[in-house]
Amino acid sequence: MINEKALALHEKWNGKLETVPKCTVKSREDLALAYTPGVAEPCKVIANEPEAAFKYTIKSNTVAVISDGSAVLGLGNIGPYAAMPVMEGKAVLFKEFGGVNAFPICLDTQDTEEIIKTIVNIAPAFGGINLEDISAPRCFEVEERLKKLLDIPVFHDDQHGTAIVVLAGTINALKVVNKTKEDCSVVVNGAGSAGIAITKLLLTYGFKNITMCDKVGILSKDTPNLNWMQEDMMKVTNLSNKTGLLKDALAGADIFVGVSAPGIVTEDMVKSMNKDAIIFAMANPVPEIMPELARAAGAKVVGTGRSDFPNQVNNVVAFPGIFKGALEGRAKQITEDMKLAAALAIAGLVPENELSENNILPEAFDPRVADVVSQAVKEHIK
Amino acid sequence: MINEKALALHEKWNGKLETVPKCTVKSREDLALAYTPGVAEPCKVIANEPEAAFKYTIKSNTVAVISDGSAVLGLGNIGPYAAMPVMEGKAVLFKEFGGVNAFPICLDTQDTEEIIKTIVNIAPAFGGINLEDISAPRCFEVEERLKKLLDIPVFHDDQHGTAIVVLAGTINALKVVNKTKEDCSVVVNGAGSAGIAITKLLLTYGFKNITMCDKVGILSKDTPNLNWMQEDMMKVTNLSNKTGLLKDALAGADIFVGVSAPGIVTEDMVKSMNKDAIIFAMANPVPEIMPELARAAGAKVVGTGRSDFPNQVNNVVAFPGIFKGALEGRAKQITEDMKLAAALAIAGLVPENELSENNILPEAFDPRVADVVSQAVKEHIK
Repeated sequence: MINEKALALHEKWNGKLETVPKCTVKSREDLALAYTPGVAEPCKVIANEPEAAFKYTIKSNTVAVISDGSAVLGLGNIGPYAAMPVMEGKAVLFKEFGGVNAFPICLDTQDTEEIIKTIVNIAPAFGGINLEDISAPRCFEVEERLKKLLDIPVFHDDQHGTAIVVLAGTINALKVVNKTKEDCSVVVNGAGSAGIAITKLLLTYGFKNITMCDKVGILSKDTPNLNWMQEDMMKVTNLSNKTGLLKDALAGADIFVGVSAPGIVTEDMVKSMNKDAIIFAMANPVPEIMPELARAAGAKVVGTGRSDFPNQVNNVVAFPGIFKGALEGRAKQITEDMKLAAALAIAGLVPENELSENNILPEAFDPRVADVVSQAVKEHIK
Repeated sequence: MINEKALALHEKWNGKLETVPKCTVKSREDLALAYTPGVAEPCKVIANEPEAAFKYTIKSNTVAVISDGSAVLGLGNIGPYAAMPVMEGKAVLFKEFGGVNAFPICLDTQDTEEIIKTIVNIAPAFGGINLEDISAPRCFEVEERLKKLLDIPVFHDDQHGTAIVVLAGTINALKVVNKTKEDCSVVVNGAGSAGIAITKLLLTYGFKNITMCDKVGILSKDTPNLNWMQEDMMKVTNLSNKTGLLKDALAGADIFVGVSAPGIVTEDMVKSMNKDAIIFAMANPVPEIMPELARAAGAKVVGTGRSDFPNQVNNVVAFPGIFKGALEGRAKQITEDMKLAAALAIAGLVPENELSENNILPEAFDPRVADVVSQAVKEHIK
């Protein structure tokens, strides 16, 4: 039903956003001010001082939402045309939740060098670059290289948006189960862009013991065919060099984070975890384990990607505020400090006395979120 | 005064356009329809049938306004950041005059191959490409190559927009002076992008005798240092292989078209032209000759680029309607036929009984223009 309705609405919308002038052009004078000859004045100022682009152009408050269509939702490599509805939707969320203008760009190339070059070439119009739905490991190189080449924030939301919200949820879940980050062992299942970014941010926050798993089971430095980023991760995860399957990893673990596949976590696996386990089962639309099964097997806090269960992990509480803060504060990068600050700000929106196993994250529609996140991000711009 | 006011307004606007959602996202259901999971439906349809992008995405009604900042207004090569206010202004005009969504893209490269590659790579989001303020002769190659590489309209407005409006004005001016295209000799001064495009379109319309001039004087096949496009033009202009200066070209000419420099046409030159001469003196803001001087010297019809004189040649009567028609008719190119149809439609907006030496073109703000032009363009899509 929702699918049919969504298709019909997309046809009616015929594109989910429009470009709307902020100035009127109803008279010759209007035209002379917004266009020639008056427009030459800001042009001349910017020609002498490129930073003035932030004063006189859309650069100050406009983000590009860019994909190559290689890893779109759960649909996979559907290409740039088919990726457009998602990027338009993301642009809509930027505006609705963060007041940030955003424009969707889908690239007709999946070559790493061409992606990088193209984004560098179109960067002057934008104040930030939100990368979206680009497959791993290409996404890591694209982001890292762009961060060095550009002086505006570059942020791959599938990685960092997800990581920030998972960290926010984890911070509050730990309070609910009364455990500390130093004493918890974490299993992250799925070693693509999201899984790796989550692992990195949890390590930055202070977790010491994280094991990554993938389809082959536990990843260790001896696992064959790791990509370069996964190899890097083996220097900081699974330090005891465990081997085995996901079930072996979960035995005695405190936290499970799944960005993987439907139904692959069983009740027995949850039973084998430590008491008061925390589960983030974010496969969409069907989680790694359904919340009621996980709780019946002893898990204390369960989050998913779905809005019809408690504790939804939804990037929309992160990216609009992060870019709002970065743009307002004229940040040149989104740093680890800014991501941690965002996670703490999101976690802080649930008051201590309202925290419970079914309430660890603010609602996606909580009107306070974007401002609180953007403020926290702004305070951590160097 | 206007310059100071324009600068202050640009600071107030802080970017002249914004992206605005056409859908609301105020509830979980809204989110499920505009974003996940519902958005997957149009994605899947487009993945199977790329043409459906026109049905479900902004591609159907959005134009990219693209410059490399190499030839901006009369300011020259001021680069991509400084070009942004002009491209934003152009995007505003697309929406205000034609109801067409447009987004400004300024390229951080002036390398022909990179410009072409970048535009090809970002094309999936757009239904048309409006090239703007790219220097000659690079602009010719960029446009020609893109027309072959893309299946959406590519239109360099500095060339064709100007040419269409000049032709429209010429069609009506000929009626005023009661001359025919076959019997008129034309001098085009300025052999850059606009001058060459005007010459081409006048030839396509049926003028037989055109001489191009540049800073060096009359261009002929023996003129040294012509670029490849100017060399091409020598096969179809100045067939009698005249030499000399602009004044030599104008002696006995019927029509002068200037896209060149202030004040370079003297009253004596106009006096040397045939009776009832037609003058388009479009150097901005100071024309090649001021209208009152030209008329005192015997010219019958004088047009300029300025809104404070009669007969303003203003691209805004062309490009919004042209793209509106091309997008609505799903044209893959803007052909010569479509350009001629646009010129005739613009000319036709001045009724025969209102035609006069001071009234050969519709006003820029004439609300009929975009619809009439778009209709004419649509009827000539093959």
